[in-house]
Amino acid sequence: MKAEIIAVGTELLLGQVVNTNATFLSEELASLGIEVYYHTVVGDNPTRLEELLGEAEKRSELVVLCGGLGPTDDDLTKDVVAKHVQHNLVQNQQALEKLKQFFTFSKRKMTENNLRQTLIIEGGTVIQNPTGLAAGTLITERDTSYLLLPGPPNELKPMFHQNARPLLEMMVPQQEQLMSKVLRFYGIGESQLVTDLKELMDAQTNPTIAPYAKPNEVTLRLTAKVSGKEKGEAMLSAVEAQIMEKVGAYFYGYGDENSLAKVTVEQLKEKRKTITAAESLTAGLFQSTLGDIPGVSEVFVGGFVTYSKEMKEQLLKIPHDLLDKNGVVSEACAIAMAEQARKLTGADYGVSFTGVAGPDELENQPAGTVWIGIAEKDKPTFAELHHFTRDRKYIRHSAVMKGLDLIRRSVKGKK
Amino acid sequence: MKAEIIAVGTELLLGQVVNTNATFLSEELASLGIEVYYHTVVGDNPTRLEELLGEAEKRSELVVLCGGLGPTDDDLTKDVVAKHVQHNLVQNQQALEKLKQFFTFSKRKMTENNLRQTLIIEGGTVIQNPTGLAAGTLITERDTSYLLLPGPPNELKPMFHQNARPLLEMMVPQQEQLMSKVLRFYGIGESQLVTDLKELMDAQTNPTIAPYAKPNEVTLRLTAKVSGKEKGEAMLSAVEAQIMEKVGAYFYGYGDENSLAKVTVEQLKEKRKTITAAESLTAGLFQSTLGDIPGVSEVFVGGFVTYSKEMKEQLLKIPHDLLDKNGVVSEACAIAMAEQARKLTGADYGVSFTGVAGPDELENQPAGTVWIGIAEKDKPTFAELHHFTRDRKYIRHSAVMKGLDLIRRSVKGKK
Repeated sequence: MKAEIIAVGTELLLGQVVNTNATFLSEELASLGIEVYYHTVVGDNPTRLEELLGEAEKRSELVVLCGGLGPTDDDLTKDVVAKHVQHNLVQNQQALEKLKQFFTFSKRKMTENNLRQTLIIEGGTVIQNPTGLAAGTLITERDTSYLLLPGPPNELKPMFHQNARPLLEMMVPQQEQLMSKVLRFYGIGESQLVTDLKELMDAQTNPTIAPYAKPNEVTLRLTAKVSGKEKGEAMLSAVEAQIMEKVGAYFYGYGDENSLAKVTVEQLKEKRKTITAAESLTAGLFQSTLGDIPGVSEVFVGGFVTYSKEMKEQLLKIPHDLLDKNGVVSEACAIAMAEQARKLTGADYGVSFTGVAGPDELENQPAGTVWIGIAEKDKPTFAELHHFTRDRKYIRHSAVMKGLDLIRRSVKGKK
Repeated sequence: MKAEIIAVGTELLLGQVVNTNATFLSEELASLGIEVYYHTVVGDNPTRLEELLGEAEKRSELVVLCGGLGPTDDDLTKDVVAKHVQHNLVQNQQALEKLKQFFTFSKRKMTENNLRQTLIIEGGTVIQNPTGLAAGTLITERDTSYLLLPGPPNELKPMFHQNARPLLEMMVPQQEQLMSKVLRFYGIGESQLVTDLKELMDAQTNPTIAPYAKPNEVTLRLTAKVSGKEKGEAMLSAVEAQIMEKVGAYFYGYGDENSLAKVTVEQLKEKRKTITAAESLTAGLFQSTLGDIPGVSEVFVGGFVTYSKEMKEQLLKIPHDLLDKNGVVSEACAIAMAEQARKLTGADYGVSFTGVAGPDELENQPAGTVWIGIAEKDKPTFAELHHFTRDRKYIRHSAVMKGLDLIRRSVKGKK
């Protein structure tokens, strides 16, 4: 199936926003065996969009449009596509109910233009929006299907995964079926991973192995082109075993929607252990990352943000002399923070972060210097020294990821 | 001058690479007063690229191509454009010298295909590549100019800045320069903002007013097309004043690189006030957001994450009875948390968050129900009830943004 992606929005043409939607959608469509031949960006201009639809109709069987489903006058994608396929716009009842509920619940006044978000193209299938208000449509006319999705990535992505992808799966011929599996790695860079797997990757054509680097982690997507599910699973497992032999030490979990935090929380739940933290440079980022995971209250009770030296003394009761003698960017401070957090809360595990987020240095130590402490009930507390790079934000994120991995390995029973 | 950007590369269509070049080039071209009407991505396919050039020639005076200038067989942009404008490819002597020097210096063997990188289109102006080996070309034929640049952003950017931009400046009439200003708003939705500004936006052509919605905030970009800087500033200020008259109550700051957290921290610094927090459902996200801002240690000492009821008692010393009687999702709890955090740390301001992040309800209250408390030295503590929507992540982000705004307004001296 030949496809193209059209993003609608003047902000993209002005260079204010990066077109990450096209990247996301391309990856998704590729995994469905749908071939994308063009990306186009066009402004909020009905004439140019209409011309483009004329072109697209000639060359593509599927046209995915994103952007321009919102409430304002420059949100014109629905109107233009409806006109192009010669259908009317109709109100979708479910989207309307959701819109009303949103304004009632949040006690905000609903302006008239919001109703535009609940319109879909008549004769099409509604694509409900789990995280926003603008409904989408999938409609087929004269051998071309048009899929309309909203612009904000935090709406487009869940909407595609939950409601659009299943519809597309039904449209793709069975023999072209693709099966894929995502392996997630922490603690190894992308260049090292592909070097370690070079022979395997060069030799491999089905399943394919595609690496993808994210901040502080790397994923590998294995994709098999198969006729049957069982055969596909066997093919994927065989390649996975070969990969694990080389880089299994860095593997932490499966799947697109997974994370090191999620795996760590799951392991704590499984072992019925609780966790706390005392954070200096990370300033709550570790605890907040745990807080992202639904149901974390089973294992996480709370903790401390001790940004200043005084708070380390006051909230964690760390002796003034210890901090004076060793400084706050020190093994002794990290160990005391982790131990005190654990003792004061009664949790099974205590993690601490103390170091230099930058850009300036602290206690003559450069930005990126971070001590991470791990206290565990009935075990000796330890702290590790790390040197992270890049900017303040990345250093703090790197520290949190390392802390999660240390806890994950401790809970699992190996360091 | 009408322009479009064509990125060539199958890796973009597979979703392996994000098209950040289009974003960079769009911003650069806009600042030169060149209007970009289309972005297109096409694979490494000569037929489709040739078809696209035919389209582009009809609608654009400037076509910027990026990608496909490298040494390998799938780098075909130069060949296809040369054929399209009916010119030959010729070797550029300076690029050839550089190539030879590179291989001599790095003691690497030069494979024959590298010579392709030194070819430019005959009759065009060479664009030398300061950080790479592939030379570009600018050539005008039948009223359309074609600018060929390489794909890697670390080559494209310096090449554009140093060698392509000066050539484009000469091609653009002086009077078309663009100036812009970004206004940031919190507490008003995009639909409401454009409703309030409808008359003004409808009447306005220069400067233009473009709204853009981000999670929990809206920005307005004012863009003036002017001949002189002073005149441009006056035009922007005049429109800004009209906007402020309508929606000034929600305005919090200027600029692309600004944030509510940054403005809040700056105001605390200015008034020499310190802040702490006690977070339940946000689990450290408020404090971590402050921690993102360099130099925050001047105003932020640390605080508490009291996720469980027990920790609210243990760490914040809130009476057991108060929590038992009111529950944790309550005004009384929010007030006690903010006050205790302030007292225990000695900070000037204390913020608290307690509520339901979801997806499950808590104490019979639905996800999104959040109490935010504000304690200020020598002033009565208060708490506000909010109902946020969408998913767990968005609810927690919404709460943090509201907390920042409440503090910002308190510090500024108005609620």
